Amino acid sequence: MLAGIDLGGTQVRVALARSDGHIVASIKTRTHLLPTPQAMVDWAADEIDRHRGNQKVGSITIAAPGPIDLKRGVLVNPPNLPWQNVPLVALMSRATRAKVQLANDADMAGLGEFHHGAGRGTKNMVYITWSTGVGGGLIIDSKLRRGAHGTAGEIGHIIIDPNGPLDNCGQRGCLEAFVSGTALARQTGRPATELFASAARGDPAARGVVEQAARYMGIALISLTNAIDPEMFVMGGGVSRSWGLIYPTMIATLRSSPFIKPARRPRLRRARLGDRAGQVGAVEWARINQ
Amino acid sequence: MLAGIDLGGTQVRVALARSDGHIVASIKTRTHLLPTPQAMVDWAADEIDRHRGNQKVGSITIAAPGPIDLKRGVLVNPPNLPWQNVPLVALMSRATRAKVQLANDADMAGLGEFHHGAGRGTKNMVYITWSTGVGGGLIIDSKLRRGAHGTAGEIGHIIIDPNGPLDNCGQRGCLEAFVSGTALARQTGRPATELFASAARGDPAARGVVEQAARYMGIALISLTNAIDPEMFVMGGGVSRSWGLIYPTMIATLRSSPFIKPARRPRLRRARLGDRAGQVGAVEWARINQ
Repeated sequence: MLAGIDLGGTQVRVALARSDGHIVASIKTRTHLLPTPQAMVDWAADEIDRHRGNQKVGSITIAAPGPIDLKRGVLVNPPNLPWQNVPLVALMSRATRAKVQLANDADMAGLGEFHHGAGRGTKNMVYITWSTGVGGGLIIDSKLRRGAHGTAGEIGHIIIDPNGPLDNCGQRGCLEAFVSGTALARQTGRPATELFASAARGDPAARGVVEQAARYMGIALISLTNAIDPEMFVMGGGVSRSWGLIYPTMIATLRSSPFIKPARRPRLRRARLGDRAGQVGAVEWARINQ
Repeated sequence: MLAGIDLGGTQVRVALARSDGHIVASIKTRTHLLPTPQAMVDWAADEIDRHRGNQKVGSITIAAPGPIDLKRGVLVNPPNLPWQNVPLVALMSRATRAKVQLANDADMAGLGEFHHGAGRGTKNMVYITWSTGVGGGLIIDSKLRRGAHGTAGEIGHIIIDPNGPLDNCGQRGCLEAFVSGTALARQTGRPATELFASAARGDPAARGVVEQAARYMGIALISLTNAIDPEMFVMGGGVSRSWGLIYPTMIATLRSSPFIKPARRPRLRRARLGDRAGQVGAVEWARINQ
């Protein structure tokens, strides 16, 4: 059998699957109930053990927020978890005796959407998660491409305007500095969820801020189309729940490029798997690398 | 045997190779001596015939400037050739009875540099040609990736500043609008070759313009690193001949990103194959697709 674990700042999810990738059990708990890495590993290992029946679980992938050290299997310093330099692969291997891989959560969500969500049937797809931060994953010629150091798809850190605001990452004018939930909260002095709720109610100022953010995201889509030439963008993350507010401006911006002729213009779709994308992708990665 | 043809605005080059890709003959002529597509095809077919001995040439790739229609094998409207909608694949197949492929010239130059030039030994490499225009080719996981419509690597049309100058392509603030030879000539009122010559002689104004262009190119390198995570950039094209003028600013800009830690910072190398990159890559593509 296979298992995929999605380690998020709010929830930890475990999915058990047959060796063909079919998920047979899915369990979640709240992250704050697992105060230490060892507690998280023990909980996940117990759940896997409880649901595997008399089958052996041979391959496990843990999807975790970056930065992660893929080679050493270490969670370095995730922004939304109070842990540092956690050797997750070693801990989980010891607890389960399975082959364990660590992977970037946005990559896994993209892989999930590619195999079982909005990106099914494509060969070249860029997944973008738009939330507190902005991340992504690249599917090129039907495979997840993680780049030379496992950091491909850092969509939030492409530069939109070199004279733009300073991003948390230290670069000036990153996409994140314009559109991330954090940046929007900083710009408006209110939480991003509140801003999107106001915009949904028709508040003109809130709408203006959201449309400007969607326009910047559209500019990133133009650059990514020219660099990578995907057939589809799939967008997940909290902000994608406000699809009706962001889609029209994003697609209008993409269409405004006279260089990107309609014949090569990628489709733009909302992600379909919601919060399950990460665990679904992690199972798929465990299957591919079993 | 294999053949690679590089159809440039100034020169047409033909390379004959053994089926393992080893080039055994290389011929060139000036493009203006071949006034029609049929004349070009006849010349190339004659040269191939003359150098093949009693061997059969089974696979030919023609590297041509975009836009090209890869599926139909048609040269659409190359900016530096007075031809339109030329069915090059059909013409060349008829003249040689070989399997003929049409490919983007920047992709082929990138493939050439990857297999036999500055990019040898890498697995993830972005080739950039900086000349009258700016183009490129992506090598990801050891293969040329052309994208969903064959237009991946249009590096010149990623947007550097959405409030920047209007590019010839109709987009605002493209990399090309800031740094292409054409844009530099427009900015300074003198040919780009003259500008680089002045900069090389130490003229402060010319140096300033060149350094600013190299800074913009460096910003594009940051965005490409974050999106694609290559281990190396290889840069060709006319402007790369002024390596000493552009390299320090490009690499300093790339290094200025605190988000791109040294461990994942790509190397930046000048292309090695010069004007031969296109034909070398075309032979390689003919070999891969024979």
